[in-house]
Amino acid sequence: MASSHTLRKLQVVSPVPADIDIANSVEPFHIAEIAKELNLTPNQYDLYGKYKAKVLLSLVDELQDSGDGYYVVVGGITPTPLGEGKSTTTVGLCQALGAFLDKKVMTCLRQPSQGPTFGIKGGAAGGGYSQVIPMDEFNLHLTGDIHAITAANNLLAAAIDTRIFHEASQSDKALMNRLCPPNKEKKRVFADVMIKRLDKLGISKRNPDDLTPEEVRRFARLDIDPDSITWRRVMDVNDRFLRKITVGQGPEEKGMVRETGFDISVASEIMAVLALTTSLSDMRERLGKMVIGNSRAGDTITADDLGIGGALTVLMKDAINPTLMQTLEGTPVLVHAGPFANIAHGNSSIVADKIALKLVGQGGFVVTEAGFGADIGTEKFMNIKCRYSGLKPQCAVIVATIRALKMHGGGPEVVAGKPLDRAYLSENVGLVENGCVNLARHISNTKAYGVNVVVAINMFASDTDSELNAMKSAAMEAGAFDAVVCTHHAHGGKGAVDLGIAVQRASENQKQSLQFLYPLDISIKEKIEAIARSYGAASVEYSEQAEKQIEIYTKQGFSGLPICMAKTQYSFSHNASLKGAPNGFMLPIRDVRASIGAGFIYPLVGTMSTMPGLPTRPCFFDIDIDTSTGKVRGLS
Amino acid sequence: MASSHTLRKLQVVSPVPADIDIANSVEPFHIAEIAKELNLTPNQYDLYGKYKAKVLLSLVDELQDSGDGYYVVVGGITPTPLGEGKSTTTVGLCQALGAFLDKKVMTCLRQPSQGPTFGIKGGAAGGGYSQVIPMDEFNLHLTGDIHAITAANNLLAAAIDTRIFHEASQSDKALMNRLCPPNKEKKRVFADVMIKRLDKLGISKRNPDDLTPEEVRRFARLDIDPDSITWRRVMDVNDRFLRKITVGQGPEEKGMVRETGFDISVASEIMAVLALTTSLSDMRERLGKMVIGNSRAGDTITADDLGIGGALTVLMKDAINPTLMQTLEGTPVLVHAGPFANIAHGNSSIVADKIALKLVGQGGFVVTEAGFGADIGTEKFMNIKCRYSGLKPQCAVIVATIRALKMHGGGPEVVAGKPLDRAYLSENVGLVENGCVNLARHISNTKAYGVNVVVAINMFASDTDSELNAMKSAAMEAGAFDAVVCTHHAHGGKGAVDLGIAVQRASENQKQSLQFLYPLDISIKEKIEAIARSYGAASVEYSEQAEKQIEIYTKQGFSGLPICMAKTQYSFSHNASLKGAPNGFMLPIRDVRASIGAGFIYPLVGTMSTMPGLPTRPCFFDIDIDTSTGKVRGLS
Repeated sequence: MASSHTLRKLQVVSPVPADIDIANSVEPFHIAEIAKELNLTPNQYDLYGKYKAKVLLSLVDELQDSGDGYYVVVGGITPTPLGEGKSTTTVGLCQALGAFLDKKVMTCLRQPSQGPTFGIKGGAAGGGYSQVIPMDEFNLHLTGDIHAITAANNLLAAAIDTRIFHEASQSDKALMNRLCPPNKEKKRVFADVMIKRLDKLGISKRNPDDLTPEEVRRFARLDIDPDSITWRRVMDVNDRFLRKITVGQGPEEKGMVRETGFDISVASEIMAVLALTTSLSDMRERLGKMVIGNSRAGDTITADDLGIGGALTVLMKDAINPTLMQTLEGTPVLVHAGPFANIAHGNSSIVADKIALKLVGQGGFVVTEAGFGADIGTEKFMNIKCRYSGLKPQCAVIVATIRALKMHGGGPEVVAGKPLDRAYLSENVGLVENGCVNLARHISNTKAYGVNVVVAINMFASDTDSELNAMKSAAMEAGAFDAVVCTHHAHGGKGAVDLGIAVQRASENQKQSLQFLYPLDISIKEKIEAIARSYGAASVEYSEQAEKQIEIYTKQGFSGLPICMAKTQYSFSHNASLKGAPNGFMLPIRDVRASIGAGFIYPLVGTMSTMPGLPTRPCFFDIDIDTSTGKVRGLS
Repeated sequence: MASSHTLRKLQVVSPVPADIDIANSVEPFHIAEIAKELNLTPNQYDLYGKYKAKVLLSLVDELQDSGDGYYVVVGGITPTPLGEGKSTTTVGLCQALGAFLDKKVMTCLRQPSQGPTFGIKGGAAGGGYSQVIPMDEFNLHLTGDIHAITAANNLLAAAIDTRIFHEASQSDKALMNRLCPPNKEKKRVFADVMIKRLDKLGISKRNPDDLTPEEVRRFARLDIDPDSITWRRVMDVNDRFLRKITVGQGPEEKGMVRETGFDISVASEIMAVLALTTSLSDMRERLGKMVIGNSRAGDTITADDLGIGGALTVLMKDAINPTLMQTLEGTPVLVHAGPFANIAHGNSSIVADKIALKLVGQGGFVVTEAGFGADIGTEKFMNIKCRYSGLKPQCAVIVATIRALKMHGGGPEVVAGKPLDRAYLSENVGLVENGCVNLARHISNTKAYGVNVVVAINMFASDTDSELNAMKSAAMEAGAFDAVVCTHHAHGGKGAVDLGIAVQRASENQKQSLQFLYPLDISIKEKIEAIARSYGAASVEYSEQAEKQIEIYTKQGFSGLPICMAKTQYSFSHNASLKGAPNGFMLPIRDVRASIGAGFIYPLVGTMSTMPGLPTRPCFFDIDIDTSTGKVRGLS
């Protein structure tokens, strides 16, 4: 462990203080020191204050000849609404590997949404003695990536409604004159982005004056069908009153009202693009080909048809660089992207993982977090993210708690903000044993990808040895490579040393190749059904709307894309109250959407809210600043 | 000029290339070099990449014993829709003072809104050889201040609607139980922010269990009157379809629909708070006391009543630090705040000006820009900003163009995006002479504050000597200290040396004390009428709504605040087509609002849009990125 100069010895206190108090009790290293430990030169990163830096994407090319480290993905079992400590375990594992096992290690986390930070859930920097610091900077604004996504998403939204508005009142010729006005030399020219549309329309002319009236009409009039628009506005705030709204009610908008709504920013397709892109030019392509709806004739309308793909890329040009931070024990962290795993794919970015794998090099470890249970985050990690990145994990960690297993075994409902039932606070081995079916299915589903599975048992003070042993046996029986009790919340990296050793062994002993759950060249329905079977479903039922959309996307040539299910995180099924490992149910597909730029088809399983709300007493009541020190209080 | 190591000699080219090409042709100094020239130590600023840094507010205290530089405000005459080059002149003047006249100088500019950058107007970094660089970073995101304002503004908006929603379905007791739930020790406690509400209600009890049912009701039930809500959501995008919307149409919101709308982010009261605050604790107070509407009983409801003032301050804690950048010639710039001057007060921040005055020190110059004409930006600079800051300018610059004077003298309409009439491109001394009444009124109105006025004639290639001489004579006749022709757009600082000398003389010879246009202790109407008289109005007419609001604000004790008129920038009057120096008109006050946190009363003169729209062909068509170099193209 002497190899790094930026490791920090923690003085742990019991009982564990509040997260923000632990975070504030430590003076972080200047991030330039962390960067130096990674052999980064100052021109390979941009500082954002003293404790954050953006690592430049150019590093991927600069390091292309270096070897990759081991690639470890952290998923979970089906969680309670309290969360089972997946981020905390991800951080604790890395603290163990870096500060106690002398490994080069890098943690790849998603940027948290500010919505939940001020709402119910609080922040997402980990917890206890396993945290990313400064915790307030991690949870708030970070380096502005989500703000950039919001700006880009909403610029596109404004462009859509305004284009419809202007087309409604102008002749083809007037539109054409406005789109290609004479320049200073009194010549009309097409903007570069318009060439893409001309190519799409099969018009090879490059002088606007040469277009026939018919070509002018096809080029200048997008004729967007307002009912077909799937592009919604976004905001990084839990604002339930924006879920469904009517816009355009001002007198100047001349009665062009339309029903639409806001999603939370992390649900934006642009977030998914950021997570799945591999280079600046790839991002430019993806942003340009995002489909916002179709014309009345049924042709897809893209961001580039609206002339805006370049501007969106410019808004996102800094966001493509991941943010370097540090853990409480001084190991490096890359924070990037942050879609919710239930309504999106829920993984941090490909570029962050790629940079991290090169920076730790052969024998090092990159631990990346996938959202929620293995049915959601890990499934999408494998079938979408790894498919696009070409990367292959050696080990998958599944985080489990006694609390969640008891719930799956028949324990009373767990509700955020309400006291836990005592079933969860005193020994009940029977509930744990019953609940292990949930863990077992997550293990076998994950093993099927060809990785070794290590179960991380995130221990709470009230857990007993008999309960922990029951979980361990069940995990091993289900095929886990190992199952390890960890106490990183209370003890930092030291509490996850056994987990670190298990992950190391599992990674070094991984032999198989990556097996996807489905190939890309089968139909959309066959792919949905393959995933549904992995949930335990006996059948899939498509709404009329879903059938129609599948038919449209197939006709439009998008059936070769992977699938990103939008499903509740609280059950393998669509029904949050079906705990354990349900079987034989019918999985309803309410609607099917497409994120063409990000590159997936997006079925909605049952009803999923894409905009959370605030409770009666949101977290913000406790959040304030000490105006004499500038320190943040009350963040959790 | 040898005193600074970061000055850059410009190689000017004729004709002047596109702004972005000039900006990209220069390699900026690392911002740490600029900071070093200002004698800043690395712990006094935070880097944001290589070319931006946030200068920490603590500097105001650290430098409180140093002397202040000269304080120069730049305003303009009533502009054409093309703008008369006020930012360009502000930058050019500073390049002259710093790079040619050997003065310590600092430029204080407002952060541009991204709305116009992608809409019609383009960026706001100056132009030609007088620009702030990197121009793309200046125009996009900057260091995230406007994003922070958007986030804070909209969190408050979500809190309002959600509070009404939760109050509608819960008894007083249930509300109280949710607001003050038992903590881990099973004790109910008030959050710190709740103490503010208890104090406001005159309840001195500090144990939630001690409140009488009547006190519980008063404390827990805000009983916001939905029709009274003045707080709107914001977005930094030109999205006209959000001007008037209906929210809450989702089935889960149970029919609690409400008409509201979005403003552009820079119109948020939080932007005004940022511009007018003087310290972190002052910002906390102002954000907490922002009034969002009133209860059904007529009591004002503040952000702190909603429990959110602390969280808003936390979201704004980095935004309070101004951003350091540089001009093309390497002189330092502070960018901070950025409200539109027509719908808000339109000045950069007090804290940026204060820091700058200390950094340049005695004999140095701080040049700060006020929005639009002197009737708008400068008036609010004097009567609102200087009143709150206690600072006093020595010199006011009024930027004027031959083009604008011709328009005021009766020239044809000037429309953005359409070719200029030839009246503007060939000599017409008569039109110029006729138009000088506009300039003269701006001069005499500005002189009345007790400052010396220097007219900066921003010269275009088509201007003739006779025209320029006509403007000069008229300016001197109207009482200007000097009137100087400048060519900084074509020549950089060298083109504004004469202006710099005039500003220096005017500043050194300033003797009078600052005279406000109105005292604070007269009635709201008397203050409005004092401003109206300065416009040339013969009378003021109040709508029924305006009368009602004035009565309410007076009753609520807010009549001692200064006035921030929301008025078109295109005329001294409310009617944009009344050019020159109109007299004898009736000024209609359509409504009166209050920004209690920012600290002003806010009359709406005629109809003012607080959300711009996009044209048929917005700027974004030309904006793209060169994916091989990462350079931005097409920003203007």
